[in-house]
Amino acid sequence: MSAEAVRALFNPRSIALVGATDKSGWSLATFDNLRNNGFPGPVHLVNPRTEIVHGERAHPSLSAIPEKVDLAYVMVPTHALLDVLREGAELGIRSYVVLTAGFGETGAEGRRLEREVAEFAREHGLILLGPNGNGYINAAAGITPYGLPIPAPLVRGPIGVVLQSGALASAVLNFAQARNVGISLLTAMGNETVLSVTDVIDYLVDDPATKVIALFLEQVRHPAEFARVARRAAQAGKPIVALKIGSSEIASHTAQAHTGALVGDDAVVDAAFRQLGVIRVRSLEDLLITAGLLAEIGKLPGRRIGVVTPSGGASEIIADRAAEEGLELPEYAPETVARLKEIVPEFATVQNPLDVTGYVVVDRTLLGRALEVVAEDPGIDAVLLLADLPRVPPPNPELSIAAFRENARRIRESPRPVAVLGNVCADVSEFGRMIQEKSGFPYVAGGIEHGMTALGAAARWSEAELSHVDDPEPLGVRGSGIWTEHQAAALLAANGIPVVPSELAADADAAVAAAEQFGYPVVLKAVADGLGHKSDIGGVRLGLSGPEDVRRAHEEVCATLRESGASGIGALVQPQRGGGVELLVGVVRDPSWGLTMAIGLGGVWVEVLRDSALRLLPVDHAQVRQALGELRGAALLQGARGSTPADLDTVADVVVRIGRLAQALGDGLESLEVNPLLVDGDRVEALDALVTWTR
Amino acid sequence: MSAEAVRALFNPRSIALVGATDKSGWSLATFDNLRNNGFPGPVHLVNPRTEIVHGERAHPSLSAIPEKVDLAYVMVPTHALLDVLREGAELGIRSYVVLTAGFGETGAEGRRLEREVAEFAREHGLILLGPNGNGYINAAAGITPYGLPIPAPLVRGPIGVVLQSGALASAVLNFAQARNVGISLLTAMGNETVLSVTDVIDYLVDDPATKVIALFLEQVRHPAEFARVARRAAQAGKPIVALKIGSSEIASHTAQAHTGALVGDDAVVDAAFRQLGVIRVRSLEDLLITAGLLAEIGKLPGRRIGVVTPSGGASEIIADRAAEEGLELPEYAPETVARLKEIVPEFATVQNPLDVTGYVVVDRTLLGRALEVVAEDPGIDAVLLLADLPRVPPPNPELSIAAFRENARRIRESPRPVAVLGNVCADVSEFGRMIQEKSGFPYVAGGIEHGMTALGAAARWSEAELSHVDDPEPLGVRGSGIWTEHQAAALLAANGIPVVPSELAADADAAVAAAEQFGYPVVLKAVADGLGHKSDIGGVRLGLSGPEDVRRAHEEVCATLRESGASGIGALVQPQRGGGVELLVGVVRDPSWGLTMAIGLGGVWVEVLRDSALRLLPVDHAQVRQALGELRGAALLQGARGSTPADLDTVADVVVRIGRLAQALGDGLESLEVNPLLVDGDRVEALDALVTWTR
Repeated sequence: MSAEAVRALFNPRSIALVGATDKSGWSLATFDNLRNNGFPGPVHLVNPRTEIVHGERAHPSLSAIPEKVDLAYVMVPTHALLDVLREGAELGIRSYVVLTAGFGETGAEGRRLEREVAEFAREHGLILLGPNGNGYINAAAGITPYGLPIPAPLVRGPIGVVLQSGALASAVLNFAQARNVGISLLTAMGNETVLSVTDVIDYLVDDPATKVIALFLEQVRHPAEFARVARRAAQAGKPIVALKIGSSEIASHTAQAHTGALVGDDAVVDAAFRQLGVIRVRSLEDLLITAGLLAEIGKLPGRRIGVVTPSGGASEIIADRAAEEGLELPEYAPETVARLKEIVPEFATVQNPLDVTGYVVVDRTLLGRALEVVAEDPGIDAVLLLADLPRVPPPNPELSIAAFRENARRIRESPRPVAVLGNVCADVSEFGRMIQEKSGFPYVAGGIEHGMTALGAAARWSEAELSHVDDPEPLGVRGSGIWTEHQAAALLAANGIPVVPSELAADADAAVAAAEQFGYPVVLKAVADGLGHKSDIGGVRLGLSGPEDVRRAHEEVCATLRESGASGIGALVQPQRGGGVELLVGVVRDPSWGLTMAIGLGGVWVEVLRDSALRLLPVDHAQVRQALGELRGAALLQGARGSTPADLDTVADVVVRIGRLAQALGDGLESLEVNPLLVDGDRVEALDALVTWTR
Repeated sequence: MSAEAVRALFNPRSIALVGATDKSGWSLATFDNLRNNGFPGPVHLVNPRTEIVHGERAHPSLSAIPEKVDLAYVMVPTHALLDVLREGAELGIRSYVVLTAGFGETGAEGRRLEREVAEFAREHGLILLGPNGNGYINAAAGITPYGLPIPAPLVRGPIGVVLQSGALASAVLNFAQARNVGISLLTAMGNETVLSVTDVIDYLVDDPATKVIALFLEQVRHPAEFARVARRAAQAGKPIVALKIGSSEIASHTAQAHTGALVGDDAVVDAAFRQLGVIRVRSLEDLLITAGLLAEIGKLPGRRIGVVTPSGGASEIIADRAAEEGLELPEYAPETVARLKEIVPEFATVQNPLDVTGYVVVDRTLLGRALEVVAEDPGIDAVLLLADLPRVPPPNPELSIAAFRENARRIRESPRPVAVLGNVCADVSEFGRMIQEKSGFPYVAGGIEHGMTALGAAARWSEAELSHVDDPEPLGVRGSGIWTEHQAAALLAANGIPVVPSELAADADAAVAAAEQFGYPVVLKAVADGLGHKSDIGGVRLGLSGPEDVRRAHEEVCATLRESGASGIGALVQPQRGGGVELLVGVVRDPSWGLTMAIGLGGVWVEVLRDSALRLLPVDHAQVRQALGELRGAALLQGARGSTPADLDTVADVVVRIGRLAQALGDGLESLEVNPLLVDGDRVEALDALVTWTR
């Protein structure tokens, strides 16, 4: 979709409502919306059977309109859509919003029709939002071809909203209005037959009216395209906040071995979002409040927050929530404490979080003066000010406005970003909205609970750095079926991944010779063509401490293999490693997002706890270090229980190499799993590996 | 505090405002509150220096009031409080609300004064709310001696609110009003010098106007008393919902060994609340929305929820949140599906959660008719209806009222409880409030996010059963210092707790004899007076497989002990157990809540993950079973990784016995820890134990 075409769709100078009728609430709402929200251009009504619609003269067809039409808003019956598009294309109308439903969402016949629409649009270069969508609200430009009532006043501001659910649009508009969150553009996507979510994100990245992008997603239809636009948004410094449903879906089990169970659809979405700098939220409230706060405060220099409140109880709730969000509330510097002591009442305790006390009722300047001092503390990165907008006019509103204006100035002139949070998630009243407009007081996040979620997200987003890793050169290696340890280990070793020494022994004598060379104890593992799960058939023998052990083990293992009719029979002999911590490093191909790496602690950790961290490939050193830190059993790598602390840089190097090898193996790779990867201090060694190919 | 005295405090027929003055906003607010919220009795103003206050004639003193005064609301300077109390006591005034601050919260002198006040009140049988508190709002009776403006309208209803933070009271009142949550009584506790939180809870349990009790707690001052009133509330079927701050506090490390690190202050509060049936929430929004929903729906028969919505996107958010809350959304029964198919549009998908589609805009009855069908489904316990109150009047409000009235009837007549949730946490508008009043439509929980939290809490609260375990008879055993394995194991064995067989061997010959009797391999453990951490000195020798091993181990261990100058030297010999899963069962004495049990998985689980569940003693069998199920590694007990599934009933029996033994040891016990408790199928055996005494 060309950027110019999307821009034209959202910025028409004239609109035709095709299928307009007094009998439809949608038609009436769309007409009213265009009339009441400042659309300056002509709105033409098209109805072949009625002369007067919505009190105005209607045209019998698009062709009958005497002027140029930029956008057609289509509400005709399902089967009439194509005719409208044909007529419009003939007339040179390029942009369409299609409210009409009855397409892919209804079944096979609808899907067929929808494909026809898509095909026609592609052939004739038409851009189309919908079908089965209510349209859009370009609040910044006052252009509102949108089929449901828009709650008044429509608050204009910096948030671009893209929704894959039409019904939720009303809830979003209600809440945005309630919390005074200003919107630049809101789009209800419908079936995404032509215009997709990613096209709109692309537009919003370039839209000067938009600072933050808020998404409600039922699915990510085009992951690669989504990744591209998310990276563009990050580069433009515009945060994306997303409510993506599906966290309750059962994880898919598509791949071999353990990794498959670790990589659920939703877990991969989580990993992808984090790597793309997309903030994932859990509720509509968090979606809008987080977007609103980010638009106000932008990038934070760090996580150290100075808190200023008029309430002890609220301070304590904030302290609890800050800990949950990973925000720090450092002690104030001595000079800050000294200055604050001069300001607050004698009985107040000067600390962070600061409660200036209920004396704010008597002294209107108290909170603001304390804010001014805290904002200059050298040990903090940002200020959290707890302040509600008034709900009802006090006896003297002018005094109230003046006080807010003074604090607005303090916030504007603060050397550090100031996030303002209210106590609870209640509406900004008409009076509150007026105060905010007249005083220039900034956005107030709705309540401590959601405001702290937003502040935590802002801090994490500010720290996120997109990796810039080049993809490796393809290796040209191709395989089929399963490569078991013997082949897989050779592949690893050839690509710079340390592997435990190993000898393939065809007979018992060779096995003993290998064991003598390694020194006892040794491990002996069955080898046969396509044998993936060798321990299931008793094919792994540990702790062999002499030649007789080795000989007997080799004979038993080979006998078992022969009985099962296997080919390519033999056994691997390896020195037995003791101590250390076992990791699992697996790469699988996710059907949507591509190669995905799971890093986990082996054994009981992965089997019982599913203790793992996911990353999309490519991964860089820093990302692997971070992933290792996310493991619940991370302490084990740091030397808990008397083990040698792992050399995490060496571990990360090896893991990055495993990822690059997986990428270099190309499209034929289904999965590559190193399990276990033994870590003992700075010794990092693959003890076993498995490669599966797509064919 | 007598119930009659508390009732009198909250239900005076006449009130005197002592220290009333036009110069104080608090005085003015209190006077206005009493005038504007329906207090029918006389309000007397007392000021010795001004004749006219708030436009009325003031009295120079309490004594000058010609009528009987039931309650004095005191706003005099700190040092004048005692004089007021003296005068009032003389006049027979028993009830006081003290706004005056400057007591314990300010330092040593204030604490002294506060003690004097407490003493005087006790001596003269006075009841006093505060000092340093804004008073109370008895909304049910229209009695509002409260020092800050009360947002109008004051919504009356079934929620009793008790707050340990004055400043948060305004936030709570704002939010209650915004979300149309009706309040019976709200109390700002102040310093709790005389009247405490538990006194008010006690009152609310008996108050017919109160169905649910909502608390904001900074601390639980009197845990035993709190436990008593919480049990009373549970028995009366009145849920307690509590926002208790302090989750970010660092856990205290008061006790020996591992258990101490597991029992943090906040974790104990969590355990205590759960055992007392108190619902703990994380935000002010959840506090009021959960209370509001519980007051509406009461006890739920189960967790199976039938969901009816007009939105696919909302349905999916609800499904995600239901999974998080442990609520089930079962498939609808075939007859339900058939009936729903006749109601919803052809293109709708009939499933749970049900989206009846945006066709609700055209057909007002659609949602209600679907609700009626779902409510009769035999496989569900309750219905969740997603429905917002309208924010602004539609063109024809009467139609809207009629539609809501019809749905209110359906909800009233539903065979199963119906929880109504709105989409987002925005205010109930004036029009919405009117619709609700005129139609009898039930409480609407504010938004999917907080509403699902509330519904989950309601389901868990409905299932909670208080245990009725008698305390055991005291054993009369007393000790001091540390009882190490030798003594502790004997104590366990004597009290019905299975212990691994063990022989105390004074010399190497005796050790070998014991080993021969048990059979090899055996374990040998150092014994000396007061030796708690024997493995720290190499005093635990595992896997001794013959007489020579045993002899050498005994000699080495005793030599080490002798070198360290220990007394009571010897060694325990035990058969070595293999396999199974190791538990830690520890009891410590929490300074507030008393004996607290931690149950965890041993080894790496407790050391790295702190994987444990806490319970206050006494615990019964069912509670222990539940605690075992809460462990992250619970799958290990069910036979993960090829182990024998544990006989959880036997495990629970043994754990209950450990708890009863700890109780029976009386006040002298500081901690009792069994670590590990080996579980292998139905064999449950203490392998080591430690008892510490308070002296």
